[in-house]
Amino acid sequence: MTTGADLAEACAAAMWRADQASQDLGMVIEHVAPGAARLSMEVAPRMVNGFGTCHGGFIFALADSAFAFACNTHGAVSVASHCSVNFLRPAALGEHLVATAAERHRAGRSGIYDVRVTAGGEVVAEFRGYSRTTGARLLEGADAP
Amino acid sequence: MTTGADLAEACAAAMWRADQASQDLGMVIEHVAPGAARLSMEVAPRMVNGFGTCHGGFIFALADSAFAFACNTHGAVSVASHCSVNFLRPAALGEHLVATAAERHRAGRSGIYDVRVTAGGEVVAEFRGYSRTTGARLLEGADAP
Amino acid sequence: MTTGADLAEACAAAMWRADQASQDLGMVIEHVAPGAARLSMEVAPRMVNGFGTCHGGFIFALADSAFAFACNTHGAVSVASHCSVNFLRPAALGEHLVATAAERHRAGRSGIYDVRVTAGGEVVAEFRGYSRTTGARLLEGADAP
Amino acid sequence: MTTGADLAEACAAAMWRADQASQDLGMVIEHVAPGAARLSMEVAPRMVNGFGTCHGGFIFALADSAFAFACNTHGAVSVASHCSVNFLRPAALGEHLVATAAERHRAGRSGIYDVRVTAGGEVVAEFRGYSRTTGARLLEGADAP
Repeated sequence: MTTGADLAEACAAAMWRADQASQDLGMVIEHVAPGAARLSMEVAPRMVNGFGTCHGGFIFALADSAFAFACNTHGAVSVASHCSVNFLRPAALGEHLVATAAERHRAGRSGIYDVRVTAGGEVVAEFRGYSRTTGARLLEGADAP
Repeated sequence: MTTGADLAEACAAAMWRADQASQDLGMVIEHVAPGAARLSMEVAPRMVNGFGTCHGGFIFALADSAFAFACNTHGAVSVASHCSVNFLRPAALGEHLVATAAERHRAGRSGIYDVRVTAGGEVVAEFRGYSRTTGARLLEGADAP
Repeated sequence: MTTGADLAEACAAAMWRADQASQDLGMVIEHVAPGAARLSMEVAPRMVNGFGTCHGGFIFALADSAFAFACNTHGAVSVASHCSVNFLRPAALGEHLVATAAERHRAGRSGIYDVRVTAGGEVVAEFRGYSRTTGARLLEGADAP
Repeated sequence: MTTGADLAEACAAAMWRADQASQDLGMVIEHVAPGAARLSMEVAPRMVNGFGTCHGGFIFALADSAFAFACNTHGAVSVASHCSVNFLRPAALGEHLVATAAERHRAGRSGIYDVRVTAGGEVVAEFRGYSRTTGARLLEGADAP
C-alpha cells in the first residue's frame, strides 16, 4: 500500500531524475512530504549579479523548485501559473540558501504554496506560488489504488 | 553634456561588466533606453526542468535582468523589492527568449516595470517588478551636472 | 451585424443592470471598448479609514470593477482569479478617482488586465488583474454570428 | 506596564474609532493580538455584483482591514504598500465572512501579513499584504516605556 509519504518521495525522485536545471544549480532536496519540500543551494560565483550579490533569478529558481517539488507530491502533474516573490535581504556569494515550501491551500485543480528562503537563519525572500494540475499523472500506476 | 540615452547606456555598461550571472546564462542586451531594456537568451540544456521545458527560474532570471537594466538607467542604484510573474506557455529547449521591459510608473524612490517575455512572437510570461532606489549612484560623476 | 464595440457596450449594459455594488458606490462607466473600460468614483465619507484617507478596499473595488467590465467585453463570462494592487499615494475625501483598464494579454481562457487609478492626474494605484472565463455567455444570442 | 496584548488592543481601539469605512461595511473586530487580527462581515445586498455574488472589492476590503489592524498592533503607523488576493470561491448574499490575519515577516520598516477569508469553513480568498511604517506613532505616549 502506498502512503502519502511514499507517494511524495516517489514523485520527487521521478521529477529529480529529469530536472537538469535544479541539479545543475547544485540544489539538494533536504526533505519532501505531502504538500511540502525543503531544498538548499549555495550561492556560486556564476550566480552573482552587477551589485555583487546573488541575482534574484537564482533565489527565485530555488524557491520555484521547492514549490514545484511540494505541489507535485500528490501524484498529479502540477505546473506554476503565477508566482510572486519579495526580496528582503541580499544573499552573498558562498551563502547556503534553504527554501522551505508549505501548502497553503489546495482544492480542485488549484494550489497555493508559500516558500520562505533563508540564509544563516535570516529571511532572504518570501515567495508564494499558485499551481494548476494539467490532468497528467507523474507516476505510471504507482499511485493508483 | 550627458543625455538620458547616454546615461542609460553608461549605466547598462557598468552593470553588465560586473553581472556574471546574466553573462553566464548567455543573455544579450539588445537595447537599452531610459526606463527600458530588451534582453534575449537561448534556452540551454542546463535550463531544462523535470517536465522537459525551461525551468521557471531561468525565465524569471531573464525578465528580472531586463527589469534590473531598465530600472537602473536613471543613474540611481535600484534594487528589486517585489516581483510577480505569470507563466503563459512553456518554453522549449533551444528557443530564443526575448524580454522587453518598460517603465510603468516612477515616483520618489519607487518604480514599477512591466516585462513581457516572448518566444517566436508568442508570449511566454508576463512579469511585473517593483523597484526601490538605495541612495547610491551607479556611476562616479558621469551623471552629475 | 454586431461589431466588437457594439458587443462591448451590450455586455457592459447587461452587467451594469445587475451590479448593485458598483452602483451603490457611486461608480460611473465613462467608457467601454473591446478589452478596455474606464470607470470613475468620488471618495465619499463612508469610504474613509482610520487614517482619514480612502480605505484601500474602495480603491481596489473601483479598479476591480474597471477590470471586470474590461474583461467581460468579449461576450464570455469572465471572473477574477487573482489581483494585485500597489498603493502609490493616498486618496482624500472628495477626490474624483478614475480607473482605466487595458487588456495586456488574452489567450485561451485566461486574460491579464492592467488598471491605473488616478486622482487629479496623479497615480493613486496600479492594479493588475488575472481573469478566467467560466464557459458561460454574457448575452443570450446577441453575440452569436 | 503595557504588554504587547494591551498595546495591540489600544491600537485597534484607536484605529476603529476613526475607521468609518470598516464600520459602515458592518465589520466586527473578533480578535486582536500582536501581529494578528480577525474581523468578520456579512455579505449585504449592496455588496452584490453583476454575477449575483459578493463584489471582489468587499472581500478585499475585509481582508485589507484585517491586514491593517494586524500590522498596526505594534504601535507604529503602518500602511499597505502592496496587496495580492486570490479568489477561490464566490461568496453569496448573506454569507458570514471571516478574515484572519497573521504576521508572516517583520523587519525594519517592512511587514508581510497573510489573510485567509472563509465562509462556512470554506476558503473564499487568500490575501497577502505588504506594509511599511510611516514613522508616526498610533498612540500618544501610551506605548512609551
